[in-house]
Amino acid sequence: MNEFELIARLTKALPGNQTVVTGAGDDCAVLDFGLPDKLFLFKTDAVVEGVHFKKNTPPEKIGRKALARCLSDIAAMAGTPAAAVVTIGLPEHFQPEAVEKVYGGMSGLAKKHGVAIVGGETTANPECLFISVALLGTVGRGKQILRSTAKAGDAIFVTGELGGSSAGKHLDFEPRLAEARWLAENFPVHAMTDLSDGLAGDLRHILAASGVGAELLKAAIPISRAARESARGNPFRKTALTAALADGEDFELLLTVAAGDAVKLLDAWKKKFPKLRLSCIGKISPGTGVTLRDKDGVRPLTVHGYVHFA
Amino acid sequence: MNEFELIARLTKALPGNQTVVTGAGDDCAVLDFGLPDKLFLFKTDAVVEGVHFKKNTPPEKIGRKALARCLSDIAAMAGTPAAAVVTIGLPEHFQPEAVEKVYGGMSGLAKKHGVAIVGGETTANPECLFISVALLGTVGRGKQILRSTAKAGDAIFVTGELGGSSAGKHLDFEPRLAEARWLAENFPVHAMTDLSDGLAGDLRHILAASGVGAELLKAAIPISRAARESARGNPFRKTALTAALADGEDFELLLTVAAGDAVKLLDAWKKKFPKLRLSCIGKISPGTGVTLRDKDGVRPLTVHGYVHFA
Repeated sequence: MNEFELIARLTKALPGNQTVVTGAGDDCAVLDFGLPDKLFLFKTDAVVEGVHFKKNTPPEKIGRKALARCLSDIAAMAGTPAAAVVTIGLPEHFQPEAVEKVYGGMSGLAKKHGVAIVGGETTANPECLFISVALLGTVGRGKQILRSTAKAGDAIFVTGELGGSSAGKHLDFEPRLAEARWLAENFPVHAMTDLSDGLAGDLRHILAASGVGAELLKAAIPISRAARESARGNPFRKTALTAALADGEDFELLLTVAAGDAVKLLDAWKKKFPKLRLSCIGKISPGTGVTLRDKDGVRPLTVHGYVHFA
Repeated sequence: MNEFELIARLTKALPGNQTVVTGAGDDCAVLDFGLPDKLFLFKTDAVVEGVHFKKNTPPEKIGRKALARCLSDIAAMAGTPAAAVVTIGLPEHFQPEAVEKVYGGMSGLAKKHGVAIVGGETTANPECLFISVALLGTVGRGKQILRSTAKAGDAIFVTGELGGSSAGKHLDFEPRLAEARWLAENFPVHAMTDLSDGLAGDLRHILAASGVGAELLKAAIPISRAARESARGNPFRKTALTAALADGEDFELLLTVAAGDAVKLLDAWKKKFPKLRLSCIGKISPGTGVTLRDKDGVRPLTVHGYVHFA
């Protein structure tokens, strides 16, 4: 059983109540507490030493990343983050000063996005630093964008450039909050998620949830310089395309809109966010699975996203 | 720097925003999102193998405890829990079936209290099982009960019996949600907290937050059978009174009301909750510190609650 299979089994059995609009399985849960104009978004995520950062990663960057991952999930629903609580598991001999730096990195990013940090639990964790952040946000009632609402014929877009995030971007990425809210306010976005498990993996989450397939255009996939440099001159490393498809932690937005909105969207985006690339990388198709089209034709895509838990 | 000193330093520097009514430092944060009749409560807590449970603790009980600790914090504010998200760090070779049992124990308790589990993150944690739960709840606007509002002259009450929780109760305790809401609805409770760090430690949290002191009556402190049995015939073990004062994880309610309400409260409680003891254990005094009164007089209390992080 891998991470996704286990989560699928667990998700089926979770208790609900009348507040739940969308439970586990999307980027955030969506909750209704009776506010006339707003729904709530609720998410937890964790970073662990040796998995999401290294022993020598600067503690400010660890704290920043722990919050940024959750912010990216709020962005994926086109929401606005509001308040976070933090659990830190500390290994023996971990310096209190380093804990303050972890919080410093987190607080800096929180302030930038107007997020309050309203609670913290500190406990022991024998072998490694473990940080779990839970984030509460809001979204206009009915304005949340799910993974499950992609439609056959949709154009597929991705922000930024993909692959090679482990070279540094995984610690410094900017959660696409403003971009996601602008998208939701200005275009009927059908489905959206953030890229945490790699394009191929996260696209499959949208496809599975929406009951559709996709065709990607090889030449349109925006490959990052880090992915190209890592692949260059090294025949034993994965190709830059594979990195762009399968590397985790890009934290870009992956979204679909009706094909008729695609050109308008690209034009408006260039004016609004001239420094951030937006690429149309393919289309949603009826059926299931992902194919990749290049100059030689169409073939099934076998590259999967990163499966964290094996 | 111990856990409390570190948390005090961190808490001062945390970013806020306009939603924050009460930030870090009480049992839960209190947030205002503009609902006319309700405020939100937000809390995170964690359980870690080797600290809060043993390697051979049944996984259902681990999951139950992870949620129950957060429920107890919602109870301490007189709130109603609504939705939880869960982060699980799994050691290598941890069985997916055991994860399902962890969730099973958590889900059973969640259903009992009407709590939805709306999200889960599963990650690796090399050496031990680590579970962090974040819980969102609500409380009537202005009805939240803080630690910081005890007044000199108040009578101090505690529910249940104290000490020796590690013999079993720490896995099976019932969060005092119904009792806390009944208290808040029927009496002007001045201050309340739940007992997680031991009576002496948690009372000091109320005293520090409220700027007052306390005198405890030695004979009135309700000592559990588990604490008495653990102390019996073993001169090297701590006394049952020390266990009742200093053992963690009782998860009972500690509260103060005006002295004039004390008898009325005891009478009404006996009718409403005949199976659960409520004890008046002393009074809030001006000044600072805790004293213990017994037949020989009054002396300063030096027994501190359990400090998790040293």
